[in-house]
Amino acid sequence: MNETARQAAKLCVLGAAAFTTGLANAEHSELLDVLLKNGAINKKQYEELAKGAQEKEEKKDEENVGISLKKGQLVFKSEDDEFKFQVGGRVMLDAAWYDNDDVSRGDADFGNGTEVRRARVFVKGTMWNDWHFKGQYDFAGNETEIKDAYIEYTGLKKAIGFPLAIKMGNFKEPFSLEEVTSSKYITFMERGMPNVFAPSRNLGVQLSTHGEMLSGGWSFAGGAFGTGIDDDAESGIDESYAGAGRLTLAPIANKTQVVHLGGGVEYRILKGDAGDEIRLRERPESHIADHRLVDARFSNTTGNPLEGDLLKYGGEAAMVWGPFSVQGEYIIAEYDIDDGPSPEFEGWYAYTSIFLTGESRSYKAKNGTFSRVKPKGIVGKGGWGAWEIAGRYSYLDLNDDNVEGGRESNWTVGLNWYATPSIRFMANVIFADADLPNGTSDNPNILQVRGQVDF
Amino acid sequence: MNETARQAAKLCVLGAAAFTTGLANAEHSELLDVLLKNGAINKKQYEELAKGAQEKEEKKDEENVGISLKKGQLVFKSEDDEFKFQVGGRVMLDAAWYDNDDVSRGDADFGNGTEVRRARVFVKGTMWNDWHFKGQYDFAGNETEIKDAYIEYTGLKKAIGFPLAIKMGNFKEPFSLEEVTSSKYITFMERGMPNVFAPSRNLGVQLSTHGEMLSGGWSFAGGAFGTGIDDDAESGIDESYAGAGRLTLAPIANKTQVVHLGGGVEYRILKGDAGDEIRLRERPESHIADHRLVDARFSNTTGNPLEGDLLKYGGEAAMVWGPFSVQGEYIIAEYDIDDGPSPEFEGWYAYTSIFLTGESRSYKAKNGTFSRVKPKGIVGKGGWGAWEIAGRYSYLDLNDDNVEGGRESNWTVGLNWYATPSIRFMANVIFADADLPNGTSDNPNILQVRGQVDF
Amino acid sequence: MNETARQAAKLCVLGAAAFTTGLANAEHSELLDVLLKNGAINKKQYEELAKGAQEKEEKKDEENVGISLKKGQLVFKSEDDEFKFQVGGRVMLDAAWYDNDDVSRGDADFGNGTEVRRARVFVKGTMWNDWHFKGQYDFAGNETEIKDAYIEYTGLKKAIGFPLAIKMGNFKEPFSLEEVTSSKYITFMERGMPNVFAPSRNLGVQLSTHGEMLSGGWSFAGGAFGTGIDDDAESGIDESYAGAGRLTLAPIANKTQVVHLGGGVEYRILKGDAGDEIRLRERPESHIADHRLVDARFSNTTGNPLEGDLLKYGGEAAMVWGPFSVQGEYIIAEYDIDDGPSPEFEGWYAYTSIFLTGESRSYKAKNGTFSRVKPKGIVGKGGWGAWEIAGRYSYLDLNDDNVEGGRESNWTVGLNWYATPSIRFMANVIFADADLPNGTSDNPNILQVRGQVDF
Repeated sequence: MNETARQAAKLCVLGAAAFTTGLANAEHSELLDVLLKNGAINKKQYEELAKGAQEKEEKKDEENVGISLKKGQLVFKSEDDEFKFQVGGRVMLDAAWYDNDDVSRGDADFGNGTEVRRARVFVKGTMWNDWHFKGQYDFAGNETEIKDAYIEYTGLKKAIGFPLAIKMGNFKEPFSLEEVTSSKYITFMERGMPNVFAPSRNLGVQLSTHGEMLSGGWSFAGGAFGTGIDDDAESGIDESYAGAGRLTLAPIANKTQVVHLGGGVEYRILKGDAGDEIRLRERPESHIADHRLVDARFSNTTGNPLEGDLLKYGGEAAMVWGPFSVQGEYIIAEYDIDDGPSPEFEGWYAYTSIFLTGESRSYKAKNGTFSRVKPKGIVGKGGWGAWEIAGRYSYLDLNDDNVEGGRESNWTVGLNWYATPSIRFMANVIFADADLPNGTSDNPNILQVRGQVDF
Repeated sequence: MNETARQAAKLCVLGAAAFTTGLANAEHSELLDVLLKNGAINKKQYEELAKGAQEKEEKKDEENVGISLKKGQLVFKSEDDEFKFQVGGRVMLDAAWYDNDDVSRGDADFGNGTEVRRARVFVKGTMWNDWHFKGQYDFAGNETEIKDAYIEYTGLKKAIGFPLAIKMGNFKEPFSLEEVTSSKYITFMERGMPNVFAPSRNLGVQLSTHGEMLSGGWSFAGGAFGTGIDDDAESGIDESYAGAGRLTLAPIANKTQVVHLGGGVEYRILKGDAGDEIRLRERPESHIADHRLVDARFSNTTGNPLEGDLLKYGGEAAMVWGPFSVQGEYIIAEYDIDDGPSPEFEGWYAYTSIFLTGESRSYKAKNGTFSRVKPKGIVGKGGWGAWEIAGRYSYLDLNDDNVEGGRESNWTVGLNWYATPSIRFMANVIFADADLPNGTSDNPNILQVRGQVDF
Repeated sequence: MNETARQAAKLCVLGAAAFTTGLANAEHSELLDVLLKNGAINKKQYEELAKGAQEKEEKKDEENVGISLKKGQLVFKSEDDEFKFQVGGRVMLDAAWYDNDDVSRGDADFGNGTEVRRARVFVKGTMWNDWHFKGQYDFAGNETEIKDAYIEYTGLKKAIGFPLAIKMGNFKEPFSLEEVTSSKYITFMERGMPNVFAPSRNLGVQLSTHGEMLSGGWSFAGGAFGTGIDDDAESGIDESYAGAGRLTLAPIANKTQVVHLGGGVEYRILKGDAGDEIRLRERPESHIADHRLVDARFSNTTGNPLEGDLLKYGGEAAMVWGPFSVQGEYIIAEYDIDDGPSPEFEGWYAYTSIFLTGESRSYKAKNGTFSRVKPKGIVGKGGWGAWEIAGRYSYLDLNDDNVEGGRESNWTVGLNWYATPSIRFMANVIFADADLPNGTSDNPNILQVRGQVDF
């Protein structure tokens, strides 16, 4: 083989390899340059070939879209990451059994049964790099519920030098670690009872930012919010407005070690119609239950349109140390109804979990939430998945200032099996103990199981 | 052209052809080996190029995702088939006209009209080869209904040596050939009246397997089921549980010839509240009809919470012989209500169809159901689609043991035009003949048409 | 470098370039031909390589699917354009404030608030070139509503020589320029009040065609329609049928200049039950408003089943001249109720808009509607988006022949900011002036804002 033929063949291989690795454009240009220099192509051919490459380059936003199915999540990205699109969702399938031996009030039992706890589909994406959107819908119970529906802009970073996102639409108010952590990633099947105070999703506008801190990071989000999608004229607080904010500090945050401290506050002006009342009630950390135990209702005493205000504040702490973790929150809600009661309610929970298979809970310092657990071995690929056991105590007090909503404390033991990063099976045993408004008590024991997949 | 240059060029073409055929990795390695051997590239270049290929290989699960639009179905697959994702759905558009000359009872007429019979969207996928999921939602009638919502695991095959799938969630109980055949593929616009006995979708857990048999195959599925998503506290049987199973035998099953025999059984413990009743009723094989003709309601006589049990069993037979096919089912339902009636109801249907254009009904022995018909010529591509005519007799008897639900027998003539594999137009004429509980009879004649697309 | 080696290398590069530009098949064949001729490959190799290419060609419908994310729209296409698939949607987020100083009737106020105005997801596609389908669902207000659900066939063009589309399903009747223009592209947040007369989506069958005309184009669509998906037995007109048609003429239609003239007509046979009534009512161009101002209800005087007919007709005109545009419509609705009133209602609107940043409203002559505005600069890419100001007067008269529904005229000032082609922010101020049926009047001033994204 003579030298020139060898060179031609070498270029040929380099070119082919370039296409193979998907770096076609850059490598293609280099190849053309070398071939022109070596005289393998002439100037005119060079220009035509280069022009074709250039035109292609300009169309790449629309044409060179890559797809990924990493962990089963279907994501589309343009080559320059300027555009993204994702279609996904989650399905959670529950069954629950209730032991109602101690029912001392006249209610019907909780109702053993099965349900689709969540059946969600979402579409989300990025357009022109800095514009993001999400639409997420839940069809559980054969009903439709808009979950996330928002537009977000992150382009201010270029002008101001630090990350600042503006978000508008329907999304979770920044309040409570367990609330803002996705239901896909929470440790027990249901969030702890103090979650009754979390405002969850409302329509509003929010600013958020984050930064580095020691070997971890901090985050802040604050916004102004109206009411949720269902809070129409009949809801009694259809014209209430709130401001809410949450600050999280994680001086340590890496793959196996996390120290998280945080706090949130919401202040809301209440405004409703005559006869409206405020109602706070919570199931015993089991969603299939037909009825709630604790249940507080109150209004003004004059029959005027409901007015007043509401201040909620809470503290959060969590720590991850290898397979071991602890987490807790304390939340207080102070209502002040004009010409009515001013009750102050409170709740807290604390839990611990350990991965028998050595994984760690995954933390995202950028927004101060917990995230997806990745098992070390995948079931079906020779592994046994990740196994986690956990225990929780939670407490909720809805009695105060002439309002009798009851008090409840629950012990929960949980077992989680993460068969794959996106498929999880859960079992919870709950020992509930409620002192009810009518002077009776109810102490149901509950067994519930879940199969969950997200995609 | 000297020999070495020729060799270089040949390798080059082989390499390019390899990329073209999508077999880049394997061929690429071979090419590199040959080039190294011929001295066209040196050892160092070889290693670098090989390393690039290796790294690419490792990322292929997430990066090398292929898309297919075969027959309009949008499917994504990772190169090694470990991950799959599909987004699809179906739309069925109906119109119906009712001839109510013989109305001898006081009911309003059936109500000529149009409707969207089904408007479904689904996402389904495979993760890590053996984990499958599906979420399917129907929005017909501007209401939301979860259809399939399940997780399935097929990885036991590796351990036990034969296919065994475990499925949990909301899906069809294994019972009745026509019920478990998708509405996209049934021969008439509506399933025959005995379908009133089919349990359809409920929340449960199922094991299924299948195997070969002579020149065909057999299948078995069995599971334990609760109630459906809508069967909440108000439904009267919210805490009922069932076991169900179905066995199918197809000693012959190929593209043009099928012999199918099967049987199913469901045993259900009924448990409801005081005052609940069981209700079985069925439209005259026309869904736009405002009301049903046969309608049986019964309960216990004591006013105690409804309890009892229920046994359903049915036999199935079908045969395909080229363009000609026959199919039939017989189903019996035996209720036993504590302190109440013990009626036994029954129904059956038989039908035949022939493809004027020579196609055959398509059968899947792995689960004993009928599947998509592929016309020999596609409308718009020079063909005329597939044309099928069919006739059915169906009978339903809801009278027994003090329960008077009525008896009905229907003759149906159907014409199906499969314009493409996924677009079908249907017309049915139904001659219904019902003896109603109140001693009267009703004999409406019905014309209904459908346009259907699935994607 | 000798000539043959150079030639081999050149072919090699050409081949590689061909793969790069996605024209692999055609170029590949040419390359093989040349190589065979030059003796670089022998006849047997040629045949094998050609056979591989041929097989690949046959699989291209399913395998060579391209994806595009142009403007954030996710579109899949097979290489020959025979199959297409798109998943998309829109989210519109609104807030409104009402000034109710002049409320002289006893109604509650309009209710300041926020809402998700539209939250839609659609799937649409093309199969075998000439078959098209679309399914579009809206989940706003946590309710499900099927919007488009249709099948369309465009293959008749080949036989008859001009474009003729047949569409069946649920879609917009061809009537009124502003109605058939997508809500994504209308100039104000809500369509003008005369939109109360537009039939919008119903189940039906339609023929449509279009052609060229001077330097623009014309379009015609006509069809037969039943009622909508929600119009069941209770709606009073559940068995009404209509014919509708719309003709548009655009003698000038290019990117910056449009002259549009059009007209539409709908004739509907009304048929309902005894006691049913016709109701026409409209919000003051603000959807968050809890109640409507103008509201006409009428029926027959005998109590017999409602029967009668209805004729609607309207004229449209619009002009675009660079950044400047005007648009107007006049619609008349003539009801004739058997044994009841025969009122004739009317409404009209006219508006003008100007793009401060120089863009033009975009027009599609093929169906006579307005379309997406593409800003010259994109926010986040160094641009400021497109800015548009607009003013509208609209009038609606629902008083006639013993029917007193009221009269209303509104002035609206609008400001639109198109941050990107698919993200738009809108603000409208509305000065409404209504003379109500009860002899009072109401003149609310309204401020409303919207954030919208479509994908």
